[in-house]
Amino acid sequence: PLEAVEDDVSLQGYDHYMLKEIYEQPESLRNAMRGRLDEENATAVFGGLNLTPQQLRSVERIILTGCGTSWHSALVGEYLIEELARIPVSVEYASELRYRNPPIENNTLVFGLTQSGETADTLAALRETKRKGHRTLAICNVVGSSIAQAADGGVYLHAGPEIGVASTKAYTSQCSVLAMLALYFGRIRHLSYEAGTNIIADLMKAPGAVQEALACNEHVKTVAEKYQNATNILYLGRQLNFPTALEGALKLKEISYVHAEGYPAAEMKHGPIALVDETTPSVFIVPQGTTYDKVMANMEEVKARGGPIIAVASKDDPHIDAVADDVIHIPDVPSIIQPIVSVVPLQLLSYHIALLRGCDVDKPRNLAKSVTVE
Amino acid sequence: PLEAVEDDVSLQGYDHYMLKEIYEQPESLRNAMRGRLDEENATAVFGGLNLTPQQLRSVERIILTGCGTSWHSALVGEYLIEELARIPVSVEYASELRYRNPPIENNTLVFGLTQSGETADTLAALRETKRKGHRTLAICNVVGSSIAQAADGGVYLHAGPEIGVASTKAYTSQCSVLAMLALYFGRIRHLSYEAGTNIIADLMKAPGAVQEALACNEHVKTVAEKYQNATNILYLGRQLNFPTALEGALKLKEISYVHAEGYPAAEMKHGPIALVDETTPSVFIVPQGTTYDKVMANMEEVKARGGPIIAVASKDDPHIDAVADDVIHIPDVPSIIQPIVSVVPLQLLSYHIALLRGCDVDKPRNLAKSVTVE
Repeated sequence: PLEAVEDDVSLQGYDHYMLKEIYEQPESLRNAMRGRLDEENATAVFGGLNLTPQQLRSVERIILTGCGTSWHSALVGEYLIEELARIPVSVEYASELRYRNPPIENNTLVFGLTQSGETADTLAALRETKRKGHRTLAICNVVGSSIAQAADGGVYLHAGPEIGVASTKAYTSQCSVLAMLALYFGRIRHLSYEAGTNIIADLMKAPGAVQEALACNEHVKTVAEKYQNATNILYLGRQLNFPTALEGALKLKEISYVHAEGYPAAEMKHGPIALVDETTPSVFIVPQGTTYDKVMANMEEVKARGGPIIAVASKDDPHIDAVADDVIHIPDVPSIIQPIVSVVPLQLLSYHIALLRGCDVDKPRNLAKSVTVE
Repeated sequence: PLEAVEDDVSLQGYDHYMLKEIYEQPESLRNAMRGRLDEENATAVFGGLNLTPQQLRSVERIILTGCGTSWHSALVGEYLIEELARIPVSVEYASELRYRNPPIENNTLVFGLTQSGETADTLAALRETKRKGHRTLAICNVVGSSIAQAADGGVYLHAGPEIGVASTKAYTSQCSVLAMLALYFGRIRHLSYEAGTNIIADLMKAPGAVQEALACNEHVKTVAEKYQNATNILYLGRQLNFPTALEGALKLKEISYVHAEGYPAAEMKHGPIALVDETTPSVFIVPQGTTYDKVMANMEEVKARGGPIIAVASKDDPHIDAVADDVIHIPDVPSIIQPIVSVVPLQLLSYHIALLRGCDVDKPRNLAKSVTVE
């Protein structure tokens, strides 16, 4: 049964909907997880999948499809589901999938991700795969939206109305839903009770960690002031922080009209590093984790070429100040919620840069909130 | 048995190795295909796969991994193999794959793509998957390179030495090898003799079509003069032309230090179109094909927002002149060789823009020809 979420669309003292929605994330994450973490069985539960445990257990491959920000959350989902549930995942641009004809085996489950539930390409891709006889599920925010009606079942984000054109709270809620799905599929398969319990404990840290990360706002504002005139910025991260790099770059592009581009950090030396000079800053997402040393090495290469460096790093990182020009600290969190926490300073960075450049944060030029045309 | 290719590393009258290598493509494509198209059996043949027909027939999934330009050719390979051979393909950044632990089923075949055969991340990703017991194959240009030794077998490009740091002929040769592999796997499975014969005929058109496409050089030079001062350019294409958009953008980035970015054309409206104004040109790759109308619609959106448009279009396109500001015509070719032909004007465009901006075309700043470090 879907819980009703109060529609509150006033600004409540915030200057913009985007800022309000960034600050709502601790609450929207709690809403995404409410009633879905089953501590007794050490798993997640979803009311609306409309598939039997046998059907879900037989899933051998998952396709995640979406556009824009939802495509980025799908990449997070790929890494989490493959890691925790050991089910191969393919991420497809909805606009490509709808006209392509990839081989899809039986026992493939297709998820369409869209905040509005009305994104034309995502809806068409989901309908095309459903028409071919595959099971389809929607992950969306708007209750009763077209995709919720078209899919066999789905999961609502319960993030409340998102007004700002640049998606923020819907993105982190998508990441949390995908993490819960990874737990759910993992616990159907090989994850132990103990592992499930630990993952639940990790997930429950997300709202508090995001709250803590939001404390960087004033500092991010000063960083934004320093870099407000940059016309090109690279965003770099590895593993779970690679989608975060893409998403951070997209936020800046959308509302500041600054050409920002995200890359897996190690890809830099295969081309993008040619762009680096003293006028092109790089944002590294480099929290503690297995590839920390590797990303630090990539950072040194950028530094050696005179590129300014902004780092999003764990609060106790003892090495980062020596390399990065500006450091934004985030709490040290378990990897499963890393994407949810790391993106917060990047949302704020794009917000402040857009403001400083005199852009209309909530209604950027050329963009619509829901892309209901092809 | 590998045929010897004469090492000719003189400039032979060309101003730069890159230009020479662009012009060598009709010949390098012939070399990639020589002895590999078996018209009698309507299939492709490869001498060095070192796998039995039974082993190859049992392949149920293919992973293609590489970095930079090789990663783009892998995307072309994904589309072609999935379409012609109906085997699900995953494309992985080698730098991500080497530290990630995705579920890989038995009967998965892993291809490592690298021109030099020495790319550190690709070599490490291939070794990691081989260590896990999967069959591995290399697609590389340099005979006897590290990856050729590390893999169970492989396919040489026979493109001859590539000196320019920005890969050109190795890229189109990779695309042709992947197309031949798609034919080969297709003919092991469900492709008819007739279908195989038709695909061979299509593939054999590639060298001549590239020769014809090269005739655009003088016109591309005037287009380059017009746009040489642009600091940001978008490259947009769909389906098989999406990797071409990525590759065209990478060429410009590498040697001109212009921030160019590729996207699936339909993704534009989910963010990148916010960048569009009269100073930000877009390059559309829009030859005849199933998504032609859709890409034209995307182009109209850019035009409506005042963005200058350069189109790479089929030579007989009757509509394109009315929409695009500048049109570069290419021959109308079968879709399987589309990526090989469409990329040629983009290679030339980046070459001329780099020259006009006074950049060192063959040795761009910050980049190495082979990335032998992480």
